[in-house]
Amino acid sequence: MHDVAPELAPFRIASFETESGQTLAPVDVAFRTWGTLNAAGDNALVVCHALTGNADVDDWWAPLLGPGMAFDTDQFFVVACNVLGSCYGTTGPASVDPSTGKPYGTRFPEVTVRDTVRLHRAALEALGVRRVAAVVGGSMGGMQALEWAFHSEYVRSIVPMACGAAHSAWCIGWSEAQRQAIYGDPKWQAGQYDPADPPAQGLSTARQMAMISYRTSASFQARFGRETRDQQFSVESYLGYQGRKLVERFDAASYVRLTQLMDSHDVGRGRGGVVDALAQLTQPALVIGIDSDILYPLAQQQFLAQHLPQAELRVIESAHGHDAFLIEFDQLSSWLRPWLQKQLTTAPQAA
Amino acid sequence: MHDVAPELAPFRIASFETESGQTLAPVDVAFRTWGTLNAAGDNALVVCHALTGNADVDDWWAPLLGPGMAFDTDQFFVVACNVLGSCYGTTGPASVDPSTGKPYGTRFPEVTVRDTVRLHRAALEALGVRRVAAVVGGSMGGMQALEWAFHSEYVRSIVPMACGAAHSAWCIGWSEAQRQAIYGDPKWQAGQYDPADPPAQGLSTARQMAMISYRTSASFQARFGRETRDQQFSVESYLGYQGRKLVERFDAASYVRLTQLMDSHDVGRGRGGVVDALAQLTQPALVIGIDSDILYPLAQQQFLAQHLPQAELRVIESAHGHDAFLIEFDQLSSWLRPWLQKQLTTAPQAA
Repeated sequence: MHDVAPELAPFRIASFETESGQTLAPVDVAFRTWGTLNAAGDNALVVCHALTGNADVDDWWAPLLGPGMAFDTDQFFVVACNVLGSCYGTTGPASVDPSTGKPYGTRFPEVTVRDTVRLHRAALEALGVRRVAAVVGGSMGGMQALEWAFHSEYVRSIVPMACGAAHSAWCIGWSEAQRQAIYGDPKWQAGQYDPADPPAQGLSTARQMAMISYRTSASFQARFGRETRDQQFSVESYLGYQGRKLVERFDAASYVRLTQLMDSHDVGRGRGGVVDALAQLTQPALVIGIDSDILYPLAQQQFLAQHLPQAELRVIESAHGHDAFLIEFDQLSSWLRPWLQKQLTTAPQAA
Repeated sequence: MHDVAPELAPFRIASFETESGQTLAPVDVAFRTWGTLNAAGDNALVVCHALTGNADVDDWWAPLLGPGMAFDTDQFFVVACNVLGSCYGTTGPASVDPSTGKPYGTRFPEVTVRDTVRLHRAALEALGVRRVAAVVGGSMGGMQALEWAFHSEYVRSIVPMACGAAHSAWCIGWSEAQRQAIYGDPKWQAGQYDPADPPAQGLSTARQMAMISYRTSASFQARFGRETRDQQFSVESYLGYQGRKLVERFDAASYVRLTQLMDSHDVGRGRGGVVDALAQLTQPALVIGIDSDILYPLAQQQFLAQHLPQAELRVIESAHGHDAFLIEFDQLSSWLRPWLQKQLTTAPQAA
């Protein structure tokens, strides 16, 4: 029985080699857990966060987490790890490179979804998790859920939401335009900036772009219309505020590396293409899409559901676009709760 | 009979007062014409360009222009004027301010769609146009077509495409994020930059954002997929190329002022709201939308068609998103040609 308190120190691994062949030493993984690991070590529910998220599931998915909730902490040992390259406790560009005594910046390697999943598995094993009941995540979290499934003997089921089998050209375009906004900030300093004087304007502009892409014309119209305040459109001040808020809490080089991590997402890479790769994943999968998502359109989740051998598809109806997976809790709960329960009750004995 | 050759000098007006109450003196209007103005002066077809466009209709709408074409130069006197604030011959931020001997930069006022239409009317009257048979335009050009219609005694019919009755919160958000990319370039210099050293990186990033918004996930996927070249995704090099191309041909302060001009678009301003305003427009209107346009979704053209008293709606079927009005020439021609002919043959005598 393992019950890990949130205040525990990050998991530390002495050395980690990335897919690209670079070695990071040491690597920390920040994580949070809720509930209790059972004696068999097989009731873990892994929750994966999105681009600027972190391990605080009780913050961004609070209505799904708790006793009797979709992520039922009476039954599941819920684990969330911060991704490799992020800036919430797991090693990333803002971490100090022991070889220089300075932040890695863009000397931090281009890491992949596969890297972070492999690293998180090491952390889970150290926590005593022998088998994962389910992996759930949206957007970048959904990409992780898909890659977790290739750890086929370790992961019993997956719930990928609001993502595709591979990052699309359009999403790569969005990533790149956002990176260009950061690169164009003279404070970027080729990624070796002073942490006290970061490329705030560039990161803010990138965030403003992203916030637009996460929503839809209809949702912005309902919320802001053509309302003005202080001779500015409300939507302009809203975006400026969102930009400043991200600057306070996120590292620009992490933003660059994590958009590249998403761009690297392609379950078919080295596996004979996406169709053959998905065909290998025989676990039960609950694929969730959003009818108004412009970044990861429903066609991408339909494709996943068609090519994953044991998939069911659910569609969130929402005006809010991509962000709906962080908004439409009633729809999510109604599907997640019974489906996740089923994975637990129909679970084979741990190996 | 007026037949104006393209090489004619711009129309010059000694002084022009903007809606905001600022006076520009003098103001030039660059224009192009095709075909011949008839004796009654009432066969003009006004073609309005989009954000980074210009009066060269034979460039960006070539398949629609010529003898026997949609814009039939055997029958129509086709006129296109460069908008106020642009950088293709009409006075704008890159023009020299006679009071300082330097480019206006952002001392150039925030002009509106109504300003440019009023200015263009002065140019048309100087050309001898007594009545306009039709005004056609897409995107920012469509906004001009709508505002032209409020010159009700002068304009007999309109064809607004791929725009709405007012610029939406989402579009204003896109505009603002693009402006932020420009403002963030240290060479922007608060809009008073050296023309020889403009904020190229900022303008390039803005253009990259815009190019994404003009298309769709499906169209980018079909064109680029996850193809790479020189260790870069093809879509990344494509966007970089598009950014550089715009920098070579467009002025950053013009880009700022023209996105603000679009943001100012609201046919209802000072007219009792959009519904009452549209109800005033009793001319025949052919409203054209695009089924995949994320910037100006079909609901906006449906709204126009519903509230313009004499409107018909046509929907371009295209995977290409907003840009479809510059691509789907067969669909456009099939509707425009007969509809514009009808406006000519059913025309009342000029006043």
